[in-house]
Amino acid sequence: MWASPFSRRVELALKLKAIPYQYIEEDLPNKTPSLLRYNPIHKKVPVLVHNDKPVAESMVIIEYMDETWENNPILPRDPYERAMARFYAKFIDDKLLPTLAKLGQTAGKEKEETIEEIHEQLKILEDELKGKQFFGGQRIGYLDIVAMILAWLHLAGEITGQKILSAEKFPLIYEWIERVMKMEVVNECLIPEEKLR
Amino acid sequence: MWASPFSRRVELALKLKAIPYQYIEEDLPNKTPSLLRYNPIHKKVPVLVHNDKPVAESMVIIEYMDETWENNPILPRDPYERAMARFYAKFIDDKLLPTLAKLGQTAGKEKEETIEEIHEQLKILEDELKGKQFFGGQRIGYLDIVAMILAWLHLAGEITGQKILSAEKFPLIYEWIERVMKMEVVNECLIPEEKLR
Repeated sequence: MWASPFSRRVELALKLKAIPYQYIEEDLPNKTPSLLRYNPIHKKVPVLVHNDKPVAESMVIIEYMDETWENNPILPRDPYERAMARFYAKFIDDKLLPTLAKLGQTAGKEKEETIEEIHEQLKILEDELKGKQFFGGQRIGYLDIVAMILAWLHLAGEITGQKILSAEKFPLIYEWIERVMKMEVVNECLIPEEKLR
Repeated sequence: MWASPFSRRVELALKLKAIPYQYIEEDLPNKTPSLLRYNPIHKKVPVLVHNDKPVAESMVIIEYMDETWENNPILPRDPYERAMARFYAKFIDDKLLPTLAKLGQTAGKEKEETIEEIHEQLKILEDELKGKQFFGGQRIGYLDIVAMILAWLHLAGEITGQKILSAEKFPLIYEWIERVMKMEVVNECLIPEEKLR
Protein backbone atom coordinates (compact mmCIF):
# COMPACT_ATOMS: atom_id res chain seq x y z
CA MET A 1 0.00 0.00 0.00
CA TRP A 2 2.33 2.72 -1.29
CA ALA A 3 -0.02 5.57 -0.29
CA SER A 4 0.09 4.78 3.45
CA PRO A 5 2.13 7.43 5.31
CA PHE A 6 2.29 5.00 8.23
CA SER A 7 4.01 2.34 6.12
CA ARG A 8 6.40 4.97 4.78
CA ARG A 9 7.36 5.86 8.37
CA VAL A 10 8.39 2.30 9.07
CA GLU A 11 10.26 2.07 5.77
CA LEU A 12 12.16 5.30 6.52
CA ALA A 13 13.07 4.05 10.01
CA LEU A 14 14.32 0.75 8.54
CA LYS A 15 16.50 2.65 6.06
CA LEU A 16 17.82 5.10 8.69
CA LYS A 17 18.80 2.17 10.91
CA ALA A 18 20.22 0.27 7.91
CA ILE A 19 18.18 -2.83 8.76
CA PRO A 20 17.80 -5.20 5.77
CA TYR A 21 14.15 -5.99 5.09
CA GLN A 22 11.80 -7.45 2.56
CA TYR A 23 9.00 -5.12 1.48
CA ILE A 24 5.67 -6.81 0.79
CA GLU A 25 2.97 -4.59 -0.63
CA GLU A 26 -0.64 -5.18 0.35
CA ASP A 27 -3.60 -4.38 -1.87
CA LEU A 28 -5.99 -3.31 0.89
CA PRO A 29 -9.26 -4.12 -0.93
CA ASN A 30 -7.87 -7.68 -1.34
CA LYS A 31 -6.13 -8.39 1.94
CA THR A 32 -3.81 -11.37 1.90
CA PRO A 33 -4.25 -14.22 4.41
CA SER A 34 -0.86 -13.28 5.89
CA LEU A 35 -2.02 -9.72 6.69
CA LEU A 36 -5.09 -11.14 8.45
CA ARG A 37 -2.90 -13.60 10.32
CA TYR A 38 -0.26 -11.07 11.36
CA ASN A 39 -2.61 -8.20 12.25
CA PRO A 40 -5.94 -9.88 13.12
CA ILE A 41 -7.08 -6.99 15.33
CA HIS A 42 -6.75 -4.05 12.94
CA LYS A 43 -6.17 -5.86 9.61
CA LYS A 44 -4.09 -2.86 8.49
CA VAL A 45 -0.61 -2.03 7.24
CA PRO A 46 2.12 -1.56 8.31
CA VAL A 47 3.09 -4.80 10.04
CA LEU A 48 6.71 -5.66 10.77
CA VAL A 49 7.41 -9.38 10.97
CA HIS A 50 10.64 -10.23 12.79
CA ASN A 51 11.55 -13.81 13.76
CA ASP A 52 8.06 -14.71 12.50
CA LYS A 53 6.53 -12.50 15.22
CA PRO A 54 4.38 -9.56 14.07
CA VAL A 55 4.37 -6.00 15.40
CA ALA A 56 1.65 -3.59 14.22
CA GLU A 57 1.05 0.18 14.62
CA SER A 58 3.77 2.35 13.05
CA MET A 59 5.03 4.06 16.21
CA VAL A 60 5.01 0.80 18.18
CA ILE A 61 7.04 -0.78 15.36
CA ILE A 62 9.59 2.04 15.37
CA GLU A 63 10.10 1.87 19.15
CA TYR A 64 10.48 -1.92 18.84
CA MET A 65 13.11 -1.55 16.11
CA ASP A 66 15.01 1.07 18.09
CA GLU A 67 15.12 -1.21 21.16
CA THR A 68 15.99 -4.34 19.16
CA TRP A 69 18.76 -2.90 16.96
CA GLU A 70 20.97 -0.45 18.82
CA ASN A 71 22.80 1.09 15.85
CA ASN A 72 21.69 4.49 14.49
CA PRO A 73 19.31 5.34 17.35
CA ILE A 74 16.06 6.99 16.28
CA LEU A 75 14.75 8.13 19.66
CA PRO A 76 16.81 10.65 21.66
CA ARG A 77 18.82 9.13 24.54
CA ASP A 78 17.76 11.64 27.19
CA PRO A 79 14.47 10.61 28.87
CA TYR A 80 13.08 14.15 28.78
CA GLU A 81 13.89 14.59 25.10
CA ARG A 82 12.35 11.17 24.43
CA ALA A 83 9.19 12.29 26.24
CA MET A 84 9.04 15.47 24.15
CA ALA A 85 9.54 13.51 20.91
CA ARG A 86 6.70 11.14 21.90
CA PHE A 87 4.49 14.06 22.98
CA TYR A 88 4.79 15.90 19.67
CA ALA A 89 4.48 12.66 17.67
CA LYS A 90 1.19 12.04 19.46
CA PHE A 91 0.19 15.66 18.74
CA ILE A 92 0.74 15.10 15.02
CA ASP A 93 -1.18 11.80 14.97
CA ASP A 94 -4.05 12.76 17.30
CA LYS A 95 -4.50 16.46 16.42
CA LEU A 96 -2.89 17.48 13.11
CA LEU A 97 -3.79 14.37 11.04
CA PRO A 98 -7.53 14.48 11.92
CA THR A 99 -7.62 18.21 11.04
CA LEU A 100 -5.88 17.55 7.72
CA ALA A 101 -8.39 14.77 7.04
CA LYS A 102 -11.22 17.28 7.53
CA LEU A 103 -9.84 19.49 4.73
CA GLY A 104 -11.15 17.37 1.88
CA GLN A 105 -14.55 17.01 3.50
CA THR A 106 -15.31 20.69 4.06
CA ALA A 107 -16.09 23.69 1.91
CA GLY A 108 -16.66 27.43 2.24
CA LYS A 109 -16.54 28.90 5.74
CA GLU A 110 -15.99 25.53 7.35
CA LYS A 111 -12.99 24.94 5.12
CA GLU A 112 -11.55 28.34 6.07
CA GLU A 113 -11.93 27.44 9.74
CA THR A 114 -10.21 24.11 9.15
CA ILE A 115 -7.29 25.88 7.45
CA GLU A 116 -7.12 28.30 10.40
CA GLU A 117 -6.98 25.32 12.77
CA ILE A 118 -4.22 23.67 10.70
CA HIS A 119 -2.24 26.91 10.81
CA GLU A 120 -2.49 27.00 14.62
CA GLN A 121 -1.25 23.42 14.79
CA LEU A 122 1.58 24.07 12.34
CA LYS A 123 2.61 27.07 14.48
CA ILE A 124 3.20 24.66 17.39
CA LEU A 125 5.49 22.54 15.19
CA GLU A 126 7.21 25.66 13.78
CA ASP A 127 8.05 26.71 17.36
CA GLU A 128 9.42 23.24 18.07
CA LEU A 129 12.00 23.70 15.26
CA LYS A 130 13.49 26.92 16.70
CA GLY A 131 17.28 26.68 16.84
CA LYS A 132 17.30 23.18 15.38
CA GLN A 133 18.27 21.56 12.08
CA PHE A 134 15.82 18.70 12.61
CA PHE A 135 13.01 17.99 15.06
CA GLY A 136 15.49 15.51 16.53
CA GLY A 137 18.14 18.25 16.94
CA GLN A 138 21.38 17.79 15.00
CA ARG A 139 20.18 14.70 13.17
CA ILE A 140 17.00 13.22 11.78
CA GLY A 141 15.05 11.19 14.36
CA TYR A 142 11.73 9.92 15.70
CA LEU A 143 9.73 13.15 15.44
CA ASP A 144 11.14 13.90 11.96
CA ILE A 145 9.81 10.53 10.78
CA VAL A 146 6.33 11.36 12.07
CA ALA A 147 6.53 14.95 10.78
CA MET A 148 7.27 13.67 7.28
CA ILE A 149 3.55 14.21 6.66
CA LEU A 150 4.50 17.93 6.35
CA ALA A 151 6.61 17.11 3.28
CA TRP A 152 3.59 15.33 1.78
CA LEU A 153 1.42 18.35 2.55
CA HIS A 154 3.99 20.56 0.80
CA LEU A 155 4.10 18.27 -2.27
CA ALA A 156 0.31 18.15 -2.41
CA GLY A 157 0.24 21.97 -2.26
CA GLU A 158 2.68 22.22 -5.16
CA ILE A 159 0.39 20.05 -7.25
CA THR A 160 -3.05 21.38 -6.27
CA GLY A 161 -1.94 24.99 -5.99
CA GLN A 162 -3.57 25.19 -2.56
CA LYS A 163 -0.51 26.06 -0.50
CA ILE A 164 -1.49 25.69 3.13
CA LEU A 165 2.11 25.45 4.18
CA SER A 166 3.66 28.71 2.98
CA ALA A 167 7.33 29.63 3.34
CA GLU A 168 6.30 33.08 4.62
CA LYS A 169 4.16 31.79 7.47
CA PHE A 170 6.28 28.78 8.40
CA PRO A 171 9.89 29.51 7.42
CA LEU A 172 11.44 26.91 9.76
CA ILE A 173 9.13 24.11 8.60
CA TYR A 174 9.84 25.15 5.03
CA GLU A 175 13.61 24.98 5.54
CA TRP A 176 13.17 21.64 7.29
CA ILE A 177 11.21 20.26 4.30
CA GLU A 178 13.94 21.44 1.91
CA ARG A 179 16.57 19.87 4.17
CA VAL A 180 14.91 16.45 4.49
CA MET A 181 13.86 16.28 0.86
CA LYS A 182 17.49 16.60 -0.16
CA MET A 183 18.17 13.35 1.67
CA GLU A 184 18.07 10.35 -0.64
CA VAL A 185 16.72 8.08 2.10
CA VAL A 186 13.74 10.41 2.61
CA ASN A 187 12.97 10.73 -1.09
CA GLU A 188 12.81 6.97 -1.37
CA CYS A 189 10.02 6.99 1.22
CA LEU A 190 7.78 9.71 -0.19
CA ILE A 191 4.85 9.07 -2.47
CA PRO A 192 6.20 9.24 -6.04
CA GLU A 193 5.07 12.58 -7.43
CA GLU A 194 3.68 11.00 -10.59
CA LYS A 195 1.29 8.93 -8.45
CA LEU A 196 -0.01 12.07 -6.76
CA ARG A 197 -0.89 13.79 -10.04
CA MET B 1 -9.59 16.34 38.73
CA TRP B 2 -10.35 13.12 40.63
CA ALA B 3 -12.60 11.73 37.86
CA SER B 4 -9.86 11.62 35.21
CA PRO B 5 -8.83 8.01 34.53
CA PHE B 6 -5.71 9.40 32.85
CA SER B 7 -4.60 11.17 36.02
CA ARG B 8 -5.32 8.01 38.03
CA ARG B 9 -2.98 6.09 35.68
CA VAL B 10 -0.11 8.42 36.47
CA GLU B 11 -0.89 8.31 40.19
CA LEU B 12 -0.92 4.48 40.15
CA ALA B 13 2.40 4.40 38.27
CA LEU B 14 3.95 6.82 40.80
CA LYS B 15 2.78 4.59 43.67
CA LEU B 16 3.95 1.37 41.99
CA LYS B 17 7.38 2.91 41.46
CA ALA B 18 7.37 4.37 44.99
CA ILE B 19 8.22 7.85 43.69
CA PRO B 20 7.37 10.59 46.20
CA TYR B 21 5.14 13.24 44.65
CA GLN B 22 2.89 16.15 45.41
CA TYR B 23 -0.65 15.82 44.08
CA ILE B 24 -2.22 19.05 42.89
CA GLU B 25 -5.87 18.83 41.91
CA GLU B 26 -7.16 20.97 39.06
CA ASP B 27 -10.72 22.21 38.80
CA LEU B 28 -11.03 22.01 35.01
CA PRO B 29 -13.72 24.69 34.54
CA ASN B 30 -11.33 27.03 36.42
CA LYS B 31 -7.90 26.12 35.11
CA THR B 32 -4.99 27.48 37.13
CA PRO B 33 -2.27 29.61 35.49
CA SER B 34 0.22 26.82 36.26
CA LEU B 35 -1.80 24.26 34.23
CA LEU B 36 -1.88 26.68 31.29
CA ARG B 37 1.85 27.27 31.67
CA TYR B 38 2.80 23.61 32.00
CA ASN B 39 0.47 22.22 29.32
CA PRO B 40 -0.18 25.13 26.94
CA ILE B 41 -0.96 22.86 23.99
CA HIS B 42 -3.72 20.68 25.45
CA LYS B 43 -4.51 22.55 28.72
CA LYS B 44 -5.44 19.19 30.26
CA VAL B 45 -4.51 16.98 33.18
CA PRO B 46 -2.44 15.00 33.94
CA VAL B 47 0.84 16.88 33.84
CA LEU B 48 3.93 15.63 35.66
CA VAL B 49 6.35 18.37 36.66
CA HIS B 50 9.86 17.09 37.40
CA ASN B 51 12.82 19.46 37.91
CA ASP B 52 10.38 22.23 36.92
CA LYS B 53 10.01 20.62 33.47
CA PRO B 54 6.51 19.46 32.46
CA VAL B 55 5.52 16.22 30.75
CA ALA B 56 1.93 15.79 29.52
CA GLU B 57 -0.10 12.84 28.12
CA SER B 58 -0.52 9.95 30.56
CA MET B 59 1.32 7.26 28.59
CA VAL B 60 4.18 9.63 27.70
CA ILE B 61 4.47 10.49 31.41
CA ILE B 62 4.60 6.81 32.42
CA GLU B 63 7.31 5.97 29.87
CA TYR B 64 9.28 9.02 31.06
CA MET B 65 9.00 7.90 34.69
CA ASP B 66 10.03 4.36 33.83
CA GLU B 67 13.13 5.64 32.00
CA THR B 68 14.04 8.21 34.67
CA TRP B 69 13.63 6.02 37.77
CA GLU B 70 14.89 2.48 37.22
CA ASN B 71 13.40 0.83 40.32
CA ASN B 72 10.15 -1.20 40.03
CA PRO B 73 10.03 -1.25 36.21
CA ILE B 74 6.57 -0.80 34.73
CA LEU B 75 7.28 -1.75 31.10
CA PRO B 76 8.47 -5.29 30.35
CA ARG B 77 12.22 -5.60 29.66
CA ASP B 78 11.93 -7.69 26.50
CA PRO B 79 11.48 -5.47 23.40
CA TYR B 80 8.79 -7.72 21.94
CA GLU B 81 6.80 -7.79 25.17
CA ARG B 82 7.19 -4.01 25.41
CA ALA B 83 5.82 -3.69 21.86
CA MET B 84 2.85 -5.88 22.75
CA ALA B 85 2.14 -3.86 25.92
CA ARG B 86 2.23 -0.62 23.89
CA PHE B 87 0.08 -2.17 21.14
CA TYR B 88 -2.71 -3.23 23.51
CA ALA B 89 -2.48 0.03 25.48
CA LYS B 90 -3.08 1.88 22.20
CA PHE B 91 -5.95 -0.52 21.43
CA ILE B 92 -7.61 0.39 24.75
CA ASP B 93 -7.14 4.14 24.23
CA ASP B 94 -7.93 4.34 20.51
CA LYS B 95 -10.61 1.64 20.19
CA LEU B 96 -12.18 0.61 23.53
CA LEU B 97 -12.42 4.06 25.15
CA PRO B 98 -14.20 5.69 22.18
CA THR B 99 -16.69 2.78 22.06
CA LEU B 100 -17.34 3.10 25.81
CA ALA B 101 -17.87 6.84 25.33
CA LYS B 102 -20.56 6.07 22.72
CA LEU B 103 -22.56 4.06 25.30
CA GLY B 104 -24.02 7.07 27.09
CA GLN B 105 -24.90 8.78 23.81
CA THR B 106 -26.88 5.97 22.21
CA ALA B 107 -30.23 4.24 22.83
CA GLY B 108 -32.25 1.33 21.48
CA LYS B 109 -30.79 -0.66 18.61
CA GLU B 110 -27.75 1.58 18.34
CA LYS B 111 -26.99 1.00 22.01
CA GLU B 112 -27.27 -2.77 21.52
CA GLU B 113 -24.79 -2.54 18.64
CA THR B 114 -22.42 -0.49 20.79
CA ILE B 115 -22.59 -3.14 23.54
CA GLU B 116 -21.89 -5.83 20.93
CA GLU B 117 -18.84 -3.86 19.76
CA ILE B 118 -17.61 -3.46 23.36
CA HIS B 119 -17.99 -7.21 23.86
CA GLU B 120 -15.85 -7.90 20.78
CA GLN B 121 -13.18 -5.55 22.08
CA LEU B 122 -13.29 -7.06 25.58
CA LYS B 123 -12.87 -10.51 24.00
CA ILE B 124 -9.50 -9.36 22.59
CA LEU B 125 -8.39 -8.30 26.09
CA GLU B 126 -9.80 -11.52 27.62
CA ASP B 127 -7.63 -13.52 25.19
CA GLU B 128 -4.60 -11.45 26.16
CA LEU B 129 -5.00 -12.59 29.80
CA LYS B 130 -4.84 -16.33 28.99
CA GLY B 131 -2.35 -18.07 31.25
CA LYS B 132 -1.45 -14.85 33.06
CA GLN B 133 -2.05 -13.34 36.49
CA PHE B 134 -1.76 -9.81 35.13
CA PHE B 135 -1.60 -8.26 31.66
CA GLY B 136 2.06 -7.71 32.56
CA GLY B 137 2.53 -11.44 33.34
CA GLN B 138 3.54 -12.33 36.90
CA ARG B 139 3.24 -8.76 38.15
CA ILE B 140 1.21 -5.64 37.55
CA GLY B 141 2.64 -3.45 34.77
CA TYR B 142 2.10 -0.95 31.95
CA LEU B 143 -0.90 -2.60 30.30
CA ASP B 144 -2.55 -3.28 33.69
CA ILE B 145 -2.38 0.44 34.43
CA VAL B 146 -4.12 1.28 31.15
CA ALA B 147 -6.60 -1.60 31.56
CA MET B 148 -7.67 -0.21 34.95
CA ILE B 149 -10.57 1.32 33.04
CA LEU B 150 -12.07 -2.21 33.15
CA ALA B 151 -12.27 -2.00 36.95
CA TRP B 152 -14.08 1.33 36.60
CA LEU B 153 -16.48 -0.28 34.10
CA HIS B 154 -17.11 -3.08 36.59
CA LEU B 155 -17.76 -0.63 39.46
CA ALA B 156 -20.09 1.43 37.26
CA GLY B 157 -21.98 -1.77 36.38
CA GLU B 158 -22.40 -2.67 40.04
CA ILE B 159 -23.98 0.72 40.66
CA THR B 160 -26.13 1.17 37.56
CA GLY B 161 -27.12 -2.50 37.31
CA GLN B 162 -26.10 -2.48 33.64
CA LYS B 163 -23.43 -5.16 33.76
CA ILE B 164 -21.62 -5.07 30.43
CA LEU B 165 -18.65 -6.90 31.89
CA SER B 166 -20.12 -10.19 33.13
CA ALA B 167 -18.15 -12.88 34.93
CA GLU B 168 -19.74 -15.52 32.67
CA LYS B 169 -18.63 -13.90 29.41
CA PHE B 170 -15.23 -12.63 30.57
CA PRO B 171 -14.02 -14.88 33.41
CA LEU B 172 -10.35 -13.93 33.05
CA ILE B 173 -11.03 -10.18 33.06
CA TYR B 174 -13.32 -10.73 36.03
CA GLU B 175 -10.64 -12.60 38.00
CA TRP B 176 -8.12 -9.91 37.03
CA ILE B 177 -10.44 -7.18 38.37
CA GLU B 178 -10.86 -9.09 41.65
CA ARG B 179 -7.07 -9.54 41.84
CA VAL B 180 -6.14 -5.90 41.22
CA MET B 181 -8.93 -4.51 43.41
CA LYS B 182 -7.52 -6.42 46.36
CA MET B 183 -4.31 -4.39 45.99
CA GLU B 184 -4.28 -1.38 48.27
CA VAL B 185 -2.27 0.68 45.80
CA VAL B 186 -4.94 0.14 43.12
CA ASN B 187 -7.83 0.98 45.43
CA GLU B 188 -6.20 4.27 46.29
CA CYS B 189 -6.30 5.16 42.59
CA LEU B 190 -9.92 4.29 41.76
CA ILE B 191 -12.76 6.76 41.87
CA PRO B 192 -14.22 6.61 45.41
CA GLU B 193 -17.46 4.65 45.12
CA GLU B 194 -19.45 7.30 46.99
CA LYS B 195 -18.52 9.84 44.30
CA LEU B 196 -19.87 7.52 41.60
CA ARG B 197 -23.30 7.16 43.21
